[in-house]
Amino acid sequence: MENHKQLIVKSVLDAWNSRIEAANKAFDSLTDEQLQQEVSPNRNRAVYLLGHLTAVHDKMLPLLNFEPQQYPDMDEAFLTKPDKAVSQIPSAKELRARWKNINSKLSTHFNKLSPDEWFLKHASVSAEDFVKEPHRNRLNIIIGRTNHMSYHLGQLAFVKK
Amino acid sequence: MENHKQLIVKSVLDAWNSRIEAANKAFDSLTDEQLQQEVSPNRNRAVYLLGHLTAVHDKMLPLLNFEPQQYPDMDEAFLTKPDKAVSQIPSAKELRARWKNINSKLSTHFNKLSPDEWFLKHASVSAEDFVKEPHRNRLNIIIGRTNHMSYHLGQLAFVKK
Repeated sequence: MENHKQLIVKSVLDAWNSRIEAANKAFDSLTDEQLQQEVSPNRNRAVYLLGHLTAVHDKMLPLLNFEPQQYPDMDEAFLTKPDKAVSQIPSAKELRARWKNINSKLSTHFNKLSPDEWFLKHASVSAEDFVKEPHRNRLNIIIGRTNHMSYHLGQLAFVKK
Repeated sequence: MENHKQLIVKSVLDAWNSRIEAANKAFDSLTDEQLQQEVSPNRNRAVYLLGHLTAVHDKMLPLLNFEPQQYPDMDEAFLTKPDKAVSQIPSAKELRARWKNINSKLSTHFNKLSPDEWFLKHASVSAEDFVKEPHRNRLNIIIGRTNHMSYHLGQLAFVKK
């Protein structure tokens, strides 16, 4: 039984890690100039997707009860507003460093969790609701965020090099 | 313990079902003519993505040990060859019907499985390898295919309407 928990945690984290690797490969393959391109005509720039994914992953730190969000200053430019609505954004170099830093922090926290701890509630569900909806646990967040990454990776594949 | 298995099966199937719903919404929102458009300049047409996703999901029927693939004639046009390499493809109407049919078949099979049966091996792993790599089970396939859908949904969002 314990075994089943370990297996599913492995499956979920393997999927997450493979998408992180694919995203790293995609962003690393783009120059800072290419990062400024729209991924498709009149769509988000690649740099917006980099900032957006970084901000979404950053918010996973408090959501998974690990530690506070590191870069709340990114919310406006990459979450609440669309691309180009905020003119002052961090440099490509800085964004690349933040992306690596957040994913590294997440990875460190992931590796410390026991299988049982993956089934504990996340921070956006109340203790009351969690009794009724126990699937709203940490593992469920990873499944959702992995698909979120896949969605934008499909778009990032369109950037012209 | 049993409870953890049920919870994770729910999480994985919820993610699958929500992506199926999003894909249905995306394809249903496009006319047959819009389906013929490339999702981005010089990229796959939306109709290719519809055929591709249908063919990939069709192959899940034997992969998950449910039943034989329904439309092996789609492999060449939508899996082994790129878009436009095969000139004769099924009509948009026919592809839409196949997409719904395959996902409906999958759903029927999914609903019959007990939590334990989700942890049985899939058809692409040998019994020998499965002993060493027990995470290569049915549930793992759903996680992977859900992310595959998300990837192409991100691209499908770019079709001009």
